[in-house]
Amino acid sequence: MMTKDQYIESLRKLNLNLYMFGKKVENPVDDPVIRPSLNSFAATYELAEDPQYQDLMTATSHISGKKINRFTHMHQSTDDLIKKVKMQRLLGQKTAACFQRCVGMDAMNAVFSSTYEIDEACGTKYHENFLKFLTRVQDEDLAVDGAMTDVKGDRSLAPSKQADPDLFLHVVERTADGVYVTGAKAHQTGFVNSHEVLVMPTISMREGDEDYAISFAVPTDSKGITLIYGRQSCDTRKIEEYNDIDVGNKVYGGHEVLVIFDRVFVPNDRIFLNGEVKFAGMIVERFAGYHRQSYGGCKVGVGDVLIGATALAGDMAGSSKASHVKDKLIEMTHLNETLYCCGIACSSQGTKTKAGNYLIDLLLANVCKQNVTRFPYEIARLAQDLAGGLMVTQPSEADYRNPELKPYIEKYLKGVASVPTEDRMRLLRLIENMTMGTAAVGYLPESMHGAGSPQAQRIMIARQSNLEMKKELAKKIARIK
Amino acid sequence: MMTKDQYIESLRKLNLNLYMFGKKVENPVDDPVIRPSLNSFAATYELAEDPQYQDLMTATSHISGKKINRFTHMHQSTDDLIKKVKMQRLLGQKTAACFQRCVGMDAMNAVFSSTYEIDEACGTKYHENFLKFLTRVQDEDLAVDGAMTDVKGDRSLAPSKQADPDLFLHVVERTADGVYVTGAKAHQTGFVNSHEVLVMPTISMREGDEDYAISFAVPTDSKGITLIYGRQSCDTRKIEEYNDIDVGNKVYGGHEVLVIFDRVFVPNDRIFLNGEVKFAGMIVERFAGYHRQSYGGCKVGVGDVLIGATALAGDMAGSSKASHVKDKLIEMTHLNETLYCCGIACSSQGTKTKAGNYLIDLLLANVCKQNVTRFPYEIARLAQDLAGGLMVTQPSEADYRNPELKPYIEKYLKGVASVPTEDRMRLLRLIENMTMGTAAVGYLPESMHGAGSPQAQRIMIARQSNLEMKKELAKKIARIK
Amino acid sequence: MMTKDQYIESLRKLNLNLYMFGKKVENPVDDPVIRPSLNSFAATYELAEDPQYQDLMTATSHISGKKINRFTHMHQSTDDLIKKVKMQRLLGQKTAACFQRCVGMDAMNAVFSSTYEIDEACGTKYHENFLKFLTRVQDEDLAVDGAMTDVKGDRSLAPSKQADPDLFLHVVERTADGVYVTGAKAHQTGFVNSHEVLVMPTISMREGDEDYAISFAVPTDSKGITLIYGRQSCDTRKIEEYNDIDVGNKVYGGHEVLVIFDRVFVPNDRIFLNGEVKFAGMIVERFAGYHRQSYGGCKVGVGDVLIGATALAGDMAGSSKASHVKDKLIEMTHLNETLYCCGIACSSQGTKTKAGNYLIDLLLANVCKQNVTRFPYEIARLAQDLAGGLMVTQPSEADYRNPELKPYIEKYLKGVASVPTEDRMRLLRLIENMTMGTAAVGYLPESMHGAGSPQAQRIMIARQSNLEMKKELAKKIARIK
Amino acid sequence: MMTKDQYIESLRKLNLNLYMFGKKVENPVDDPVIRPSLNSFAATYELAEDPQYQDLMTATSHISGKKINRFTHMHQSTDDLIKKVKMQRLLGQKTAACFQRCVGMDAMNAVFSSTYEIDEACGTKYHENFLKFLTRVQDEDLAVDGAMTDVKGDRSLAPSKQADPDLFLHVVERTADGVYVTGAKAHQTGFVNSHEVLVMPTISMREGDEDYAISFAVPTDSKGITLIYGRQSCDTRKIEEYNDIDVGNKVYGGHEVLVIFDRVFVPNDRIFLNGEVKFAGMIVERFAGYHRQSYGGCKVGVGDVLIGATALAGDMAGSSKASHVKDKLIEMTHLNETLYCCGIACSSQGTKTKAGNYLIDLLLANVCKQNVTRFPYEIARLAQDLAGGLMVTQPSEADYRNPELKPYIEKYLKGVASVPTEDRMRLLRLIENMTMGTAAVGYLPESMHGAGSPQAQRIMIARQSNLEMKKELAKKIARIK
Repeated sequence: MMTKDQYIESLRKLNLNLYMFGKKVENPVDDPVIRPSLNSFAATYELAEDPQYQDLMTATSHISGKKINRFTHMHQSTDDLIKKVKMQRLLGQKTAACFQRCVGMDAMNAVFSSTYEIDEACGTKYHENFLKFLTRVQDEDLAVDGAMTDVKGDRSLAPSKQADPDLFLHVVERTADGVYVTGAKAHQTGFVNSHEVLVMPTISMREGDEDYAISFAVPTDSKGITLIYGRQSCDTRKIEEYNDIDVGNKVYGGHEVLVIFDRVFVPNDRIFLNGEVKFAGMIVERFAGYHRQSYGGCKVGVGDVLIGATALAGDMAGSSKASHVKDKLIEMTHLNETLYCCGIACSSQGTKTKAGNYLIDLLLANVCKQNVTRFPYEIARLAQDLAGGLMVTQPSEADYRNPELKPYIEKYLKGVASVPTEDRMRLLRLIENMTMGTAAVGYLPESMHGAGSPQAQRIMIARQSNLEMKKELAKKIARIK
Repeated sequence: MMTKDQYIESLRKLNLNLYMFGKKVENPVDDPVIRPSLNSFAATYELAEDPQYQDLMTATSHISGKKINRFTHMHQSTDDLIKKVKMQRLLGQKTAACFQRCVGMDAMNAVFSSTYEIDEACGTKYHENFLKFLTRVQDEDLAVDGAMTDVKGDRSLAPSKQADPDLFLHVVERTADGVYVTGAKAHQTGFVNSHEVLVMPTISMREGDEDYAISFAVPTDSKGITLIYGRQSCDTRKIEEYNDIDVGNKVYGGHEVLVIFDRVFVPNDRIFLNGEVKFAGMIVERFAGYHRQSYGGCKVGVGDVLIGATALAGDMAGSSKASHVKDKLIEMTHLNETLYCCGIACSSQGTKTKAGNYLIDLLLANVCKQNVTRFPYEIARLAQDLAGGLMVTQPSEADYRNPELKPYIEKYLKGVASVPTEDRMRLLRLIENMTMGTAAVGYLPESMHGAGSPQAQRIMIARQSNLEMKKELAKKIARIK
Repeated sequence: MMTKDQYIESLRKLNLNLYMFGKKVENPVDDPVIRPSLNSFAATYELAEDPQYQDLMTATSHISGKKINRFTHMHQSTDDLIKKVKMQRLLGQKTAACFQRCVGMDAMNAVFSSTYEIDEACGTKYHENFLKFLTRVQDEDLAVDGAMTDVKGDRSLAPSKQADPDLFLHVVERTADGVYVTGAKAHQTGFVNSHEVLVMPTISMREGDEDYAISFAVPTDSKGITLIYGRQSCDTRKIEEYNDIDVGNKVYGGHEVLVIFDRVFVPNDRIFLNGEVKFAGMIVERFAGYHRQSYGGCKVGVGDVLIGATALAGDMAGSSKASHVKDKLIEMTHLNETLYCCGIACSSQGTKTKAGNYLIDLLLANVCKQNVTRFPYEIARLAQDLAGGLMVTQPSEADYRNPELKPYIEKYLKGVASVPTEDRMRLLRLIENMTMGTAAVGYLPESMHGAGSPQAQRIMIARQSNLEMKKELAKKIARIK
Repeated sequence: MMTKDQYIESLRKLNLNLYMFGKKVENPVDDPVIRPSLNSFAATYELAEDPQYQDLMTATSHISGKKINRFTHMHQSTDDLIKKVKMQRLLGQKTAACFQRCVGMDAMNAVFSSTYEIDEACGTKYHENFLKFLTRVQDEDLAVDGAMTDVKGDRSLAPSKQADPDLFLHVVERTADGVYVTGAKAHQTGFVNSHEVLVMPTISMREGDEDYAISFAVPTDSKGITLIYGRQSCDTRKIEEYNDIDVGNKVYGGHEVLVIFDRVFVPNDRIFLNGEVKFAGMIVERFAGYHRQSYGGCKVGVGDVLIGATALAGDMAGSSKASHVKDKLIEMTHLNETLYCCGIACSSQGTKTKAGNYLIDLLLANVCKQNVTRFPYEIARLAQDLAGGLMVTQPSEADYRNPELKPYIEKYLKGVASVPTEDRMRLLRLIENMTMGTAAVGYLPESMHGAGSPQAQRIMIARQSNLEMKKELAKKIARIK
């Protein structure tokens, strides 16, 4: 396994074609806007080095028998699925941000089992291709981005009916050695911190969509890939003169990029689906299922930090003994742990795939994610309630550093006498960061849309809910023939 | 194990001192008001006979190694805890009512581990006493009621401060052979269908409360026990001339009784706690924990029936294709499965006690029950939405049986032409039963108060939430020393 | 105006063809099951006699200039609309039930303004007909039922496409003197206590539906009308031997009946719409609008009683000082007053119709009713939370009257020492009545479906929401051309 | 009345001691960070010039009989109170931001009636002082900030028990001509755009708190006042090189400042309360009441823009025909109009004070604000749902202006083919602005805390809820003596 430092060094060797704020980014690794997201990703390496977290952070490869980072592991049991969730909660607690590596883990587990079943049905060799790729990922402890979401254009039209055929990524040329693809994947979390990208189709497909039914892996700095960094609320606070307090979370963060594929070449042995339209849906459903499980871990960990910060805000303001404050903290905890229950339950009820890795219970994983589209918003609302208005009216760090203003700020932003005013300012900025700033991007809209928007889960819940069986139960009780 | 029929026969031998509607009930087994609750209880025997449910309904005794009904089992693993929840969901689906046997199961598992630890701390012999009792229960497949809730009088006063000392059950006389107890246990589910009652204290206690810190088991027809049957919404529909349609659920039901102990004698070998005040809380917490888990199974099963009934109501009215109808069914399913997630999760995260049986995760079990105090109400609300107003304005069965009125009713209560009007009437009565009638008692207020009212769970969530650890997480991210 | 006693006597003269529990009801006025609903209706007469309520309960007829009961008044100002809501809240507070007379008031106000506009457009004489009818209603202070809801059969089919043409009420024969109608109106609130019924179409109509576009008024005991009394949860408690405590609300109640029209003759001067299909929707929309406003009054009054009862339950149990109890009472109040705000607001923003009476703001009235489909359920849930489980496990009144059991019940159901146990029992039965029993029919499912089910309001909200204007606002701010 | 331009010019004459980002701001009027908030404030002048808004934006002074801006008006009727709410909704629609002038209006109406009653009780001359101040405000059409919220220090301690006596603003010296005050007012909305500040106490007070019971008005640029500008999420986007798209709302905004009073002199004739401790609470309650009403107008207007923007996002993405999209827009509208209902209702039910102006219904105004602490959060959540993830992952405007990247962005961020990509980008930035950016400060945390945090409303609701009357209602129905 790579150490954190080795991982960071390895990123320096990538030759990404990345743009941000209208300019080419020559050195993403040391860029102050990007670096926090790298730090979060790097935490997946760092904690794997830490003896106390071995059980959660590492696993034994079912291919090589070697110890590997759990993020590259094919889950071998429901216990593995549960440990995945716990690992994610741990990382959420440590980073208070999106650590990005789940997407690749979830994509790999989905493609692993799907390719096995595609081969079985179609006589293809995708699983062999994938195993080769996976072996390298495990052995070299690579960071992999899983890329599913196409930009989609007009939502009321199918891929092939769009005004521009590239609005869904597709094969534009086929050669003996491989294929060329064009299109774009949106909202790519962690791409800049990844060595490889594992591309998947974004929706179920039918006959006629063959060119869109494509899955493959290529290096993130492949020729033809252009990245445009997504801007986040409050992103430039990281490059202000005083960038210690107001950033809220100085060390960790997350990012999304728009990934443009402009005739990117994919060699044959890196292809995992190529025109078998009826299996596109399987990959989508499995990846989405795994990723909806993931949110029952990572967001819970982030929620733990927000709950802690909110409790601390009460301590600092002298309000923590008020019954309504205690009750709201209980409610935040209750909601957060309900999410965790969903993450654990869909893992506990997982089942073995034909390929041998474990799949979560799809119904419960969708239920998990559906709750994630609701409860973090309510937790954030309660955090803003208990934090008080100062969270959004506090003077800037630059004011605080001004010797003329500092005494005023020290004096008038003081809460409980024993707590340094600066600590209170730091804390309120953290709550701002998590509910409105850069981390809010990950904690709120990403909770909404990541792994699929709410309606996508509702469709899956409907599909998995077995209403007919329930109608039979009711008929029996009502004695209706 | 007893068969269903043997079980019913065994109840005939009990000599209960039971009152209902102001009269002594000489034959509870065949009483039409009580019988549905017996049928639900009996289903725990019946399904255990059914080969297809062996895995869920039975277990292997860790004492005798014999196959036993799971309701008498000491959980030997987290897998056992999960199977418990699944068994409860199954029974909820089959009865659409409260099948009552969980209370004893949960009480026995709580007292089993607690007596072990009390003995360890105090040098007592309660665990030995309990094992003897348990062995008989397992061998004879007895039905056991777990009795915790005292009537409590003035909630602002401690047991010993009440105007009447009997408002909490307590020892009123001690002899060489045992103790005499007086007091009352309220809301006793399934008592009338049980052979034995396992009594536990109802709250944590302190020095001075020794007489109240008492746990024991006695036969349900012990001298000095008087039972008064609790009346339920719509209970007398079961004894109307036409009692087929309007009852909603003709076969199954539940019941609660007020159990009065008037100098009931408890022999020494049936005592499991006797004055060790500081362990009263342990029994309470563990029993409540197990029982809060239970609701993540049984109410989910009942919810399945209600969801099925609601979906069927849409089919019968011709409205099931409307998008809002489909969406509300999804929401009902989503809420119901969220409860199930909580039941599964607190089981999956269970841990071994010193005595060897498994205890659920207390935080998650309390989270489970807290959701049960909310979601069934919303599921019921949505059921009433989709069922339509006819559910509460429908003519009585007697009207339907009147030959003059029947043609009118057949004609005007017809929904989709192919569905018999009578079927629609039956179905709407089932939904009424589950949301306002006898079964609503179990599905709604019992979901609210059973295993402790909402505030009890909030106190436990606060106690288990580890806020200090979360504050540390936040401090670390905000870089506060 | 009639006195309460005159009103009751007037009902004795009706010759209703009414069935209940399969039998003809010869004397509805003194029937113990029906009487409470009559008492509620009679309260609209009784309070109008009371000097302290003159301002709310009476108005000045814009026709005769005489003092009339406000329930027969055509609203002459927004102040009248507001007083209507306050009158309804008052009656809800006094009866804790549905007092039924609003339906006719709302129907009359809707038909008054609609007939004026129909005549204007079509040259008909409906408004004249209606004025004649109204004058008599005001002069004689008659009780009028407004009948809109058809049984509807298969919801996916239009009136004329139903397997049975009678599933929507329609004209089956036309003569020189009038028309014959056949069909049924469901869920008719207060019909049994009314002198006249004002029939309206139930949905918007198109060409081809002419026979269904019919509105008229006839006496409730007209030849051809058959009534079947809808059964309610716990209805027969009123005819038990002991029917004092367990009924919860001994004096007041509500009812719904299924009203069957079998070739009922309507003379020409009682017809208010007859084939003008495009005006059916106007009547529906206006009646529904007024009636959705009504719920912002009556249910708030009922809610006041439930909040009071819940607060009292806390006092009686000694729990009213607990912060969570206080907080839940605040929440109940908050929700209840939010409903009231909606009732007041749609009244305050009312506008004058062409005919001269005032119409509520349709958007806000629909918003009002939409909230009524939600908040009473949450208020009831909180009431059940604070009432405690005893509400559904309490012994019957017959038990309490048994001299052997009474001492036990007195002793063990005692809460705070100073409160008689019987009072506590009465109170808990009231909460049961309002959340699960006869009054729950009015407070919950009727809040859901009365004046239209939730989806009906959502359609109206969509129609009234002026999204295009809001899009323009957004475009302007975003500087989009 | 001043024109918009005159107003802006008048601000240039102020000599504010204002700091932002650690530096003195010499010219706030033209500062690009501050200017949007000035533009919002100026809209209150601009719309008052517009003939079509005369009825809402202007009123007739009850002092001078002259036409004045409604923001300086003492409400003379409930109709005035309603127009106030409508004026606020209008301004919210036009600015999608906080236009700040309500605080002064609400403060003036509260102090107007309170001083009258204080004088009556204490023989003081505060009302005369206030009338003189008010006359000038009306005649010169001045902008007035209302300053209530002290920084408060340790929330568990009273003003006089704080470690630092200045944590609540208080009199530090008394002279024959006036008093000197020291302290700070936090979260001051619109202070920078105001000519005068009207200071009020922040809580109820008792004997011993005399120095803290102080109310007065002074010019905003008085000697001894220092301002520190509060920083908002995304504030510096306004000073980026490309500041057209990413700001979301280029023209309008809001601000809060920390206002420090360091021995500020207040002449006697500008004092409105000075030591009459028992009247501090009256001013607080009335100001809070008026301001809680205000939120039922302004936030509804802002909500209108957000609903429009969200609907437009659906149009642009081609998803607006999906039933779940339509349903969520209905829900947003429903919630928004419920807030409006509350704003209208508490106005409609207002009553005349002794001084002659109208006060809102306090219970309903508190209910209004309590809903405002909830619904905007849910509206924002639904907006983020329908907007899609692109709202937070979209490239920056600088990327879009880069000629190399622009074609990619044009191509891949295209939704419906007919809509320019740039328009879609603008719109998504507006939604970001309103739910996470500068405007979110006003729409979310300010909705939470402005005019008092949620718990403050709950205390008032409890105090106004008349539980005892409701208990009597319940007792009567349950026939309890």
